[in-house]
Amino acid sequence: MPLFSTQRRVQFSETDMAGIVHFANFYRWMEETEHEYFRSLGLSIMHHQPDGQVLGWPRVSASCNYNAPARYEDVVDCRLDVERVGLRSVTYQIEFWREATRLAAGRMKTACCICHPDGTLTSVDLPDDYRSLIHESTPHVPASARK
Amino acid sequence: MPLFSTQRRVQFSETDMAGIVHFANFYRWMEETEHEYFRSLGLSIMHHQPDGQVLGWPRVSASCNYNAPARYEDVVDCRLDVERVGLRSVTYQIEFWREATRLAAGRMKTACCICHPDGTLTSVDLPDDYRSLIHESTPHVPASARK
Amino acid sequence: MPLFSTQRRVQFSETDMAGIVHFANFYRWMEETEHEYFRSLGLSIMHHQPDGQVLGWPRVSASCNYNAPARYEDVVDCRLDVERVGLRSVTYQIEFWREATRLAAGRMKTACCICHPDGTLTSVDLPDDYRSLIHESTPHVPASARK
Amino acid sequence: MPLFSTQRRVQFSETDMAGIVHFANFYRWMEETEHEYFRSLGLSIMHHQPDGQVLGWPRVSASCNYNAPARYEDVVDCRLDVERVGLRSVTYQIEFWREATRLAAGRMKTACCICHPDGTLTSVDLPDDYRSLIHESTPHVPASARK
Repeated sequence: MPLFSTQRRVQFSETDMAGIVHFANFYRWMEETEHEYFRSLGLSIMHHQPDGQVLGWPRVSASCNYNAPARYEDVVDCRLDVERVGLRSVTYQIEFWREATRLAAGRMKTACCICHPDGTLTSVDLPDDYRSLIHESTPHVPASARK
Repeated sequence: MPLFSTQRRVQFSETDMAGIVHFANFYRWMEETEHEYFRSLGLSIMHHQPDGQVLGWPRVSASCNYNAPARYEDVVDCRLDVERVGLRSVTYQIEFWREATRLAAGRMKTACCICHPDGTLTSVDLPDDYRSLIHESTPHVPASARK
Repeated sequence: MPLFSTQRRVQFSETDMAGIVHFANFYRWMEETEHEYFRSLGLSIMHHQPDGQVLGWPRVSASCNYNAPARYEDVVDCRLDVERVGLRSVTYQIEFWREATRLAAGRMKTACCICHPDGTLTSVDLPDDYRSLIHESTPHVPASARK
Repeated sequence: MPLFSTQRRVQFSETDMAGIVHFANFYRWMEETEHEYFRSLGLSIMHHQPDGQVLGWPRVSASCNYNAPARYEDVVDCRLDVERVGLRSVTYQIEFWREATRLAAGRMKTACCICHPDGTLTSVDLPDDYRSLIHESTPHVPASARK
């Protein structure tokens, strides 16, 4: 069982002229799953801290393997696992399923940063309230090895 | 020197509330660079063949490492190299630079397929006219090791 | 009360560097509301008919007035009314509310068409099963005059 | 002749499963034409003023009439006219042509605003340097009446 899962329906504007979901949309879906996971913990991805600074989570890297095309009106099960909680980063594995078919398997590493008003970013340690809520999935096996 | 390069300007709608380009846009940029490379060879990514079948190039996998944020109105240099031409696939390395700063480095593997009207895909060998035009970058060093 | 309503949460990728939802997204939201309305009637927006032809609904026109900005994580109430069912078209009014604040009010006219495989469109009369299910909102007052 | 024009090529990710450009993209194209027009005048759409405030141009309303579908790899001529320069707003007419075929005709009213750090907006008069550069198209006939 994944650590967190949510469902979304494929929208018409997400398809392309090949009749399938355009591959770049899966990265938006990874992010939407991550953000819904944060909300489920009472956290936000753009957090105004008491000192006025804004805590954000820019991406370090992302990847996705595509197994089967997703189509208009498909209901997609988005399954998130936390692979690793680092000192200043979190790495997720996120899989997309339509019933018993895996459509795609992604991975996303994100850094904890202060977002300055001038658009620059400074990497910082995860605050304690985040660290106490975001846990690595256990047992620590790749999501793709489960079902 | 990359095998092929093109430039694009960052659009306002590509930014997000963090004030930087949303990470998913880099995958669209990889694709736009690939398609412009195809056009430079006289090829199209959606080709109606003489027998009425449509040849397309769905993605097998894609990944991107983010090095520095891109911002509104930045002019981004998109540099494409062909890492490998397989029997039924092509793998690209695509880097994004703003002057001397590398913003991101991506990789994309794409399969040569017949796209059937019912939305299913059948993997096929690269046609000869594609194989004769798409060449692996030489010397075969990672794009990131060059400048 | 609107004829049909649904809710959606504002996603991070829908914001821009001004910190608010980019205005073009409201047109996608209009469409997603229309499609969800169709699903609620047991209809689909891309219908493969028994004779093999595909019935679709390309847009004739669309417009939107913006009243207040929408922000990340807002829950937006999308309220659809059918303004007019024509011989070959349907016109919708769709409003977007965050609690008691109207964010935007849109209008969309869409034509009933056969979508040919070569990408051309032929306007056709609404099929009987669509006509029997899609009803004009009554009393026929602009959605914006209600609450 | 329009006041300003620019060209863009239709990208694959802008098409949908109907094989044509998704209608919401025309609003992004309107904006990209507006911004390129601003750049041609030496202006920016997000301007950090000497006093630290940010001047922006949120939309009041937008509309588009669709005349013919745009397709992958089409080269689209985007023609902008300034319909009206108000005290605190600018209204544009923007048409999209593929050679002698008009694809769509849009209109966009935009307000001159101070964008506050907390995401609120205050409408202000157009600064003099903007007013001196943005001129209404003459003769003042609808863009659609010309060619």
